[in-house]
Amino acid sequence: MKIQLIIIGNELLNGKISDKNTSYLAKLAFEHNFELTKTHIIGDDPNSFQKALKEAWEVSDIVITSGGLGPTKDDLTKDMLAQYFSKKIEVNDEALSFVRKIYQDKGKEYSDKMAYHFIPQDFKLLYNRIGYAPALQYSEGAKTVYALPGVPSEFQVLLNEEIFPTLKKDDNQFKHIIIKTYGVPEAQIFYKIAPLLWDELCKYGEVSSLPHAYGVDIGVKLTEKNTDQLAQFEKEIIALVQSHGLKDYIWHIGSESLEEVIIREAKAKNIKIGFAESCTGGLCASRITDISGSSSVFWGSVVSYANEVKMKSLKVKEDTLKNKGAVSEETALEMAIGARAHLDVDIAVTTTGIAGPGGATPGKPVGTVGIGFSDKHASASKMYYLNGNREQLKVRFSQVALFTLLERIRNF
Amino acid sequence: MKIQLIIIGNELLNGKISDKNTSYLAKLAFEHNFELTKTHIIGDDPNSFQKALKEAWEVSDIVITSGGLGPTKDDLTKDMLAQYFSKKIEVNDEALSFVRKIYQDKGKEYSDKMAYHFIPQDFKLLYNRIGYAPALQYSEGAKTVYALPGVPSEFQVLLNEEIFPTLKKDDNQFKHIIIKTYGVPEAQIFYKIAPLLWDELCKYGEVSSLPHAYGVDIGVKLTEKNTDQLAQFEKEIIALVQSHGLKDYIWHIGSESLEEVIIREAKAKNIKIGFAESCTGGLCASRITDISGSSSVFWGSVVSYANEVKMKSLKVKEDTLKNKGAVSEETALEMAIGARAHLDVDIAVTTTGIAGPGGATPGKPVGTVGIGFSDKHASASKMYYLNGNREQLKVRFSQVALFTLLERIRNF
Repeated sequence: MKIQLIIIGNELLNGKISDKNTSYLAKLAFEHNFELTKTHIIGDDPNSFQKALKEAWEVSDIVITSGGLGPTKDDLTKDMLAQYFSKKIEVNDEALSFVRKIYQDKGKEYSDKMAYHFIPQDFKLLYNRIGYAPALQYSEGAKTVYALPGVPSEFQVLLNEEIFPTLKKDDNQFKHIIIKTYGVPEAQIFYKIAPLLWDELCKYGEVSSLPHAYGVDIGVKLTEKNTDQLAQFEKEIIALVQSHGLKDYIWHIGSESLEEVIIREAKAKNIKIGFAESCTGGLCASRITDISGSSSVFWGSVVSYANEVKMKSLKVKEDTLKNKGAVSEETALEMAIGARAHLDVDIAVTTTGIAGPGGATPGKPVGTVGIGFSDKHASASKMYYLNGNREQLKVRFSQVALFTLLERIRNF
Repeated sequence: MKIQLIIIGNELLNGKISDKNTSYLAKLAFEHNFELTKTHIIGDDPNSFQKALKEAWEVSDIVITSGGLGPTKDDLTKDMLAQYFSKKIEVNDEALSFVRKIYQDKGKEYSDKMAYHFIPQDFKLLYNRIGYAPALQYSEGAKTVYALPGVPSEFQVLLNEEIFPTLKKDDNQFKHIIIKTYGVPEAQIFYKIAPLLWDELCKYGEVSSLPHAYGVDIGVKLTEKNTDQLAQFEKEIIALVQSHGLKDYIWHIGSESLEEVIIREAKAKNIKIGFAESCTGGLCASRITDISGSSSVFWGSVVSYANEVKMKSLKVKEDTLKNKGAVSEETALEMAIGARAHLDVDIAVTTTGIAGPGGATPGKPVGTVGIGFSDKHASASKMYYLNGNREQLKVRFSQVALFTLLERIRNF
């Protein structure tokens, strides 16, 4: 089943907002073994719309549009679909009672001047339980187009509740084996450490390599149907990757994120975790609390941006801040010891660094960060020197902190 | 100047990563008054590449590709460009010494087996100071194609340092006036409160409306060249919007984000700010510290996920937690009073709620949040009931908290 997505909106092409719908649809499609073959991001422009729709409709089983269903004059989707499929736009009674009810539920009155109840002929309505605009569906032969609102929450609910449950699952089951590595660049893996690995993995299925700022994920997509055979292949692949000298770099085999692995392993060992964050400004805590169930192991974080807070909450010594600086091994260490005590946790991990663009001092350029930890076995800290702009550095700092935390959980 | 962007990589179409390059390029292009007319997101597939390249090249002055320059066998960009422009791929001595140097600088040795120094004939190299793969540039007539790495940090550095400085600025200066509203839905604005506003604004320039989860941004793009006239138009537009009954809903006129306005206004009044966060798990603090210069007003945040931390750091009473619950007006209020004292700040704002999917109790569904504040004038709290999944709710909770903070700064 081939899918293309057309995302409509000037706000995406002038940088006001960034697209969240591609990755959401992509994940859903991947889980169903459907293939998202292309996303077109276009402006509120009739020519671009017709061109993208023509291309998508010709080569896909399903075309999904996102956006352009709103009430303002730059919302073109219904007109564009009506034009492409040669349909008239008419008053749709079902849509009218639908939006009247939505307005009533919110204590407002729907005005007939609004365009929500004008729908192209022969188009079916899809119930949008959290927004205003009804979504639409139209089929010709085996092909279907769905017109969804661009707001991610509405887009997601409609995909999950109205569209994917009605699609026939692909019978060709598959398994995606993902080997996650840390601390070694992509070229190093495939040219130095394991030059034959790629070709050997190709014998099992489609191979991919995804480099991040802090690691490389190697994927193999297996389409083998026999379950015993599949398990055997999986074993062989894991053995293959490890025998090729990558063993020390692999931190996870599977699709879980770093945050998910941390929480699962901390839960299994009944470890309470916490942070003291300066330069990451709460990002470590926010990443951990993105995961449902994190409350069973995550106790809290002291976001100590000001030195006053480092001293008061974390008992960092004034001398240390004065003589070594807030961004130092010593401060990172004292923060860790202080945070473990203050939050009453088993493992505390800390960050103190310079995210820039200001704040650099001689010997401590932007990108300098001290990462500390404290647990029953040891308390220590280390300096790292990373690259990037402010936003990237915050993520990279938090990444080092989370890998430090994972290591301490594994050694606990 | 018309630009199209082609983003290559299976990882974008199976949901492993989401595209950050469109919005970055879009912002840059918008500032230069260039027009990003389309982004194509495609997989590592020759047919899709040729089709996208043909479409983009035919209608654009500049085509930028992102991704596919890496060292693995799924990296096709150089082959695809060579094929489209009928060029041979050959050893490029400049590229060879370039990547050798990069490897040397990182204490590694470049192997000739790697493909970084094979470059299509007649293509120019662009210096990639933070990655491995050289970027490429090729012109025919007035059109140019740039091939950039997909890693956002490298993509951004190359755009900023190598590409945009060489492009001729568009002489047609313009001014984008953005009116940011809060607390009123889009349809309400344009059909109930101000039904004539859209048409009246159209007399000044291109009008747009961008609804968020918590507000609507109304934009007008003015291309008037006379500076006095421009200032006059701006005044008229602001008066127009306010006269149309929107005055009470506007929280900012300009392009600054909520976080930027908070920091600027807190700085101007010399106000120290802090949070105590439960359900937002550090997100409020992380959003504020995304802004450079936040350290002058942001003191810290107590991320008190566990009740133990709420009691110890924030002096929330055990009775309150037992009788009213952690998610309650009372707890939000005690957290605020406690955080203001503990962090020694002028204004403290707090969040305690249920981000889900678990944790709902009778009368407190997922999406319930208590928002509290404490400052020299008053301490208070209020319950809100919001919609969304865990990730969306965290953002929405933090949004209410930040608007509460802005209001308190303005009333300080």
